Amino acid sequence: YKINGTNHTSLYFRDKWVLDASDDEYGGVLVNAERLPSDPDKFTFVLRASLSHWKVKGKKGVWLKLPLEKCDLVPVAVKEGFQYHHAERGYVMMTYWIPEEPCMLPSNASHQVGVGGFVINDKNEVLVVQEKHFTPSLSGLWKIPTGFIHEFFRQTQSEEIFTGIVREVQEETGIDTEFVEVMAFRHVHDVAFQKSDLFFVCLLRPLSKQIMVDDLEIQDAKWMPLVEFVEQPLIQEDDMFKKIIDIFIARLGKRYCGLSVHQLVSKFDDKLSTLYFNTVDDPNLNCQAS
Amino acid sequence: YKINGTNHTSLYFRDKWVLDASDDEYGGVLVNAERLPSDPDKFTFVLRASLSHWKVKGKKGVWLKLPLEKCDLVPVAVKEGFQYHHAERGYVMMTYWIPEEPCMLPSNASHQVGVGGFVINDKNEVLVVQEKHFTPSLSGLWKIPTGFIHEFFRQTQSEEIFTGIVREVQEETGIDTEFVEVMAFRHVHDVAFQKSDLFFVCLLRPLSKQIMVDDLEIQDAKWMPLVEFVEQPLIQEDDMFKKIIDIFIARLGKRYCGLSVHQLVSKFDDKLSTLYFNTVDDPNLNCQAS
Repeated sequence: YKINGTNHTSLYFRDKWVLDASDDEYGGVLVNAERLPSDPDKFTFVLRASLSHWKVKGKKGVWLKLPLEKCDLVPVAVKEGFQYHHAERGYVMMTYWIPEEPCMLPSNASHQVGVGGFVINDKNEVLVVQEKHFTPSLSGLWKIPTGFIHEFFRQTQSEEIFTGIVREVQEETGIDTEFVEVMAFRHVHDVAFQKSDLFFVCLLRPLSKQIMVDDLEIQDAKWMPLVEFVEQPLIQEDDMFKKIIDIFIARLGKRYCGLSVHQLVSKFDDKLSTLYFNTVDDPNLNCQAS
Repeated sequence: YKINGTNHTSLYFRDKWVLDASDDEYGGVLVNAERLPSDPDKFTFVLRASLSHWKVKGKKGVWLKLPLEKCDLVPVAVKEGFQYHHAERGYVMMTYWIPEEPCMLPSNASHQVGVGGFVINDKNEVLVVQEKHFTPSLSGLWKIPTGFIHEFFRQTQSEEIFTGIVREVQEETGIDTEFVEVMAFRHVHDVAFQKSDLFFVCLLRPLSKQIMVDDLEIQDAKWMPLVEFVEQPLIQEDDMFKKIIDIFIARLGKRYCGLSVHQLVSKFDDKLSTLYFNTVDDPNLNCQAS
């Protein structure tokens, strides 16, 4: 049984007819994507043998990651009963659940995360933008800069909420800022591709004054007097915008305290993570209301 | 040019050689998944013609949703230059960016959303569980019930944070609860499939007493005296657990106020959405600290 000019089958298979795979923590196996045969017919043969083997071994979930260049194997996997689990630009992850009992495989990502930033200067002016592409019903609205936080991609760590909003404001308006707090967040469903959206409303302190508009996404940007910003009909007529502005005004009047950022490593997963919590009233919790 | 026994080509193509597709709001096209030819060779031919046609028309992004039963078309699309965008169990979404300029297509979902619930009864006991599958370093830890919020699936609306945690507590322990607040949240990266995780720590009020353990996921559950819960070495030795417990204790002592739930419809997108914000100190914002 020869593959790609070698009869050293262990190059492709740990066992003679079984795909090279490692065990996961939940009784399943993760197929080694580096050692897949390229030929669909060979793959059909070995995949069948592998599934039988894993079944006998009492394995549960099978994870099969097929890179773009192995796309010819997708139809084979589907025919053998695999389903899609998730995909990124360069690969699709497929899964097969062996036991009779209900599938216990985890879901894929369910949310996108957006951020918006209130930046107010010492003249009581708010940093606002008009976008090039907007919902027609929002025509004419001056809004705060918003965007999505960047994802883990090519060895780059995903962004934090508190760094993502600083980047977005910088990109859209050229203004440098310092993150102060998350004031509130909004949860909404069935947005892009039926996924959900979490949107974090942040307060930022400006570190520069000179606006430079990003021509690609932004039509215009300016410092707008707070009163003028608040009195825009599209804000006053919308329950959501109105409530968010109320929170912002309460925060400016020091009648509200948002959630500030604390970075910690947990032994639980040994990861640097960020905890956001309200710091009002308790001196031990280091209130940052200023 | 006959497909599936009919020469009524408009059944499959709006134009003679062009795939049936509708325009999106951003100058792109969404191919109609219902009217794809099944045969890979025919699909190759029509896909090429369609791409040329869309290029001439100045179209930007092409969205091609291939259901599981059309998996034979995946290799064709890859060979014509498509990449994967995202996938759900029953389909893979592929994209092609026509212009020379940088790709402006939106990312896919980047986060999973978890919830954890502190449930404390009038005897100052906390509802705690031990999981069947746990990280070895957490062996012996009694922890609060946690889980992921359920996703939009088969016409069912995605869960809210405040309903997801009530369901999780009920499933794991049989205890009915009422949601009070989000006390804090944690953001961590590179968790499942390199995606990020947002974990919301909630406070709940118990509505029942009798524990019924879920045998599938939970080893054991019980009401544990608060002091005993807090003094567990694994909690005291971990910065993250310790900080979350500090917040919980401050909240019990009414020295902390979390974020409560307000559901609103915004005209912006006409969707029912949930706004979470701190309600301390401002009577207009209806503080629920109790």
